[in-house]
Amino acid sequence: MVTPAESMPKFASAELDRFSREVLESLGIEPKRAAKAAKLLVNSDLRGIDSHGVARLWVYAKWLGEGHANPRPEVRTLRETPSTIALHGDGGLGIVVGPEANERVIEKARDVGSAWGTISHSNHFGIAGNYALRAVEEDMIGMVFSNATAQMYPVGSFQPMLGTNPIAFAFPAGDEPPIVVDMATSAGAFGKIEIANRTDQPIPDGWVKTRQGEPINDPARVYKEEHSLSPLGCTDEHAVHKGYCLASVADLLGGVLSGAAWGPHCPHFFFPDKPYSDQTKSGLGHCFTAMRIDAFMEPSEFKSRVDEWIRTFRKTAPADPNRPVMVPGDPERKAIAQRSEHGIPLTRAVHDSLLELASQLDLKPPAQSS
Amino acid sequence: MVTPAESMPKFASAELDRFSREVLESLGIEPKRAAKAAKLLVNSDLRGIDSHGVARLWVYAKWLGEGHANPRPEVRTLRETPSTIALHGDGGLGIVVGPEANERVIEKARDVGSAWGTISHSNHFGIAGNYALRAVEEDMIGMVFSNATAQMYPVGSFQPMLGTNPIAFAFPAGDEPPIVVDMATSAGAFGKIEIANRTDQPIPDGWVKTRQGEPINDPARVYKEEHSLSPLGCTDEHAVHKGYCLASVADLLGGVLSGAAWGPHCPHFFFPDKPYSDQTKSGLGHCFTAMRIDAFMEPSEFKSRVDEWIRTFRKTAPADPNRPVMVPGDPERKAIAQRSEHGIPLTRAVHDSLLELASQLDLKPPAQSS
Repeated sequence: MVTPAESMPKFASAELDRFSREVLESLGIEPKRAAKAAKLLVNSDLRGIDSHGVARLWVYAKWLGEGHANPRPEVRTLRETPSTIALHGDGGLGIVVGPEANERVIEKARDVGSAWGTISHSNHFGIAGNYALRAVEEDMIGMVFSNATAQMYPVGSFQPMLGTNPIAFAFPAGDEPPIVVDMATSAGAFGKIEIANRTDQPIPDGWVKTRQGEPINDPARVYKEEHSLSPLGCTDEHAVHKGYCLASVADLLGGVLSGAAWGPHCPHFFFPDKPYSDQTKSGLGHCFTAMRIDAFMEPSEFKSRVDEWIRTFRKTAPADPNRPVMVPGDPERKAIAQRSEHGIPLTRAVHDSLLELASQLDLKPPAQSS
Repeated sequence: MVTPAESMPKFASAELDRFSREVLESLGIEPKRAAKAAKLLVNSDLRGIDSHGVARLWVYAKWLGEGHANPRPEVRTLRETPSTIALHGDGGLGIVVGPEANERVIEKARDVGSAWGTISHSNHFGIAGNYALRAVEEDMIGMVFSNATAQMYPVGSFQPMLGTNPIAFAFPAGDEPPIVVDMATSAGAFGKIEIANRTDQPIPDGWVKTRQGEPINDPARVYKEEHSLSPLGCTDEHAVHKGYCLASVADLLGGVLSGAAWGPHCPHFFFPDKPYSDQTKSGLGHCFTAMRIDAFMEPSEFKSRVDEWIRTFRKTAPADPNRPVMVPGDPERKAIAQRSEHGIPLTRAVHDSLLELASQLDLKPPAQSS
């Protein structure tokens, strides 16, 4: 039986924020950090990226509760120049140490025009777009690369060697909302496979393969069998090597350059006690850059150029007159508008996971708004 | 009749370099600049990117000969901070002013750790990979974004609004060769469409569409009819929106941020006298970044990590035992090895275009090596 979003229980973002904060605090994270991390999580839900929001809270709780993540990390500077910083995340949660690294990069860009920074010994840091958008608040362009648990094959093999390594870019606009690109470098997002499974729909051909390269179309099999995800492009004819290349770039910047684990050595998000090699304990790594708009042109001029870009693309003759052309970030903005007004829908499984956390940690469960 | 590469006339890279240099010099470019630009072009041929090498020389000659490009551009600094530079290319050829902008970015990165730079009023700058590889020579990571003539549709339309905007990334290695990602953000490269046309092979489904969205599989039709290219991803199911997003990022960085033309306003490479709007005269734009490896970790450590990354990926169990897994940059390296030894094969059409240039400009045509 399929549960459409309309009939799912809904929760106000403030209530999910309150609950996430309390969960993280009760597992040892300082209140200020817990508040910031909770905001990141709930922001993913508001943006419609359900897989990266409160649905993941139980995994972060597992990392903290079982001692795989350090609730009080001391982020250390390994190397520093006027426009770069290399940080060590001290085993903290990605949603705690990631924002701190990003902030350091933004500070440096403020001082010298632009900056690049890395952080190792981190972990899953939520949606990459959150970080790029933070730069936009400072009238900067932001860019983010991260590695992740290996689930995706390199071209020429069907063994999982790379994560669905996300990359994100954000650009401030003027009267229009900012442009945000926030994407996994795989063909299909794992969140969509989860939805296909819940709704008993087949997965599009090519998203997931067996280790022998046979396509898997039944989403239930993904949960039962060894498999690999396809990089963006999906087939040789459609340039799957480009998805492989982009995921490699994110691994080289996020993992190799930062001093974190890379490729098949990356820790497993759902099985934090599974070491792949000595490298695994270096955690995941992220790489951020930010550049000040006023280092290139008057911010007001840039923003009116971006506004014009957005309007020009939106009024491109559509293939279907009822579906106007969108610009990067529009689908997320639609979700924000709807969910801010009507609340964030949670599936039974996600809701149950929150109720279980509430009971384990003796917290007030999130109150349903409808 | 198909002419396989083996039976095409071949030319030593030094001879194509000599000829390209003389063509550019005789059209007014200073010897030093002509030498650098020629090297970029021939390097594309050596790397197997035939579409961007001497095959394009006649177009650059047309730009110069008809007064659309400035042979003696004075690259001007518009804005500057310790780690950023915004440049005006003064209407020079992209292969002349692009390398100069890239060099300025590398100098700044040398001083403060990392840098970003843009250049407007440029034009077609050859393969993006050349620029990222230049940073590698300085023990830096290089990254490049450029816009180009609009040929590609945004998702939801079939009108050409974006170029096949290239992005490139390069990373130094130790004993292994550097890792290079150099890709158009379209599904199919235009060079491959040219090859399909020459060899009478159908184009893979989805690469090219009519303005009404019907697939074009006959490459000959691409030359006769209005059409649009598909972004990377190619279909909704295979995340074509991600290709659209990446091309947009390259347009926003290369075009909007630099002050160049963007999207549908970009000048047409083959029809330089076709103005799309007032913006067209701002030319194409490029965006470069470079970061010093030693700002993040000991270069020797980074390089041995990259070597290990390369070796790990190369020994991943292959799907076909006769085709080992490659890493980004391997196909180009194979081409370099082969073409350095056996010469660069040129098609009849490209060879004819060089002979015509030789006759027009009264130059010694390139001597065939076999």
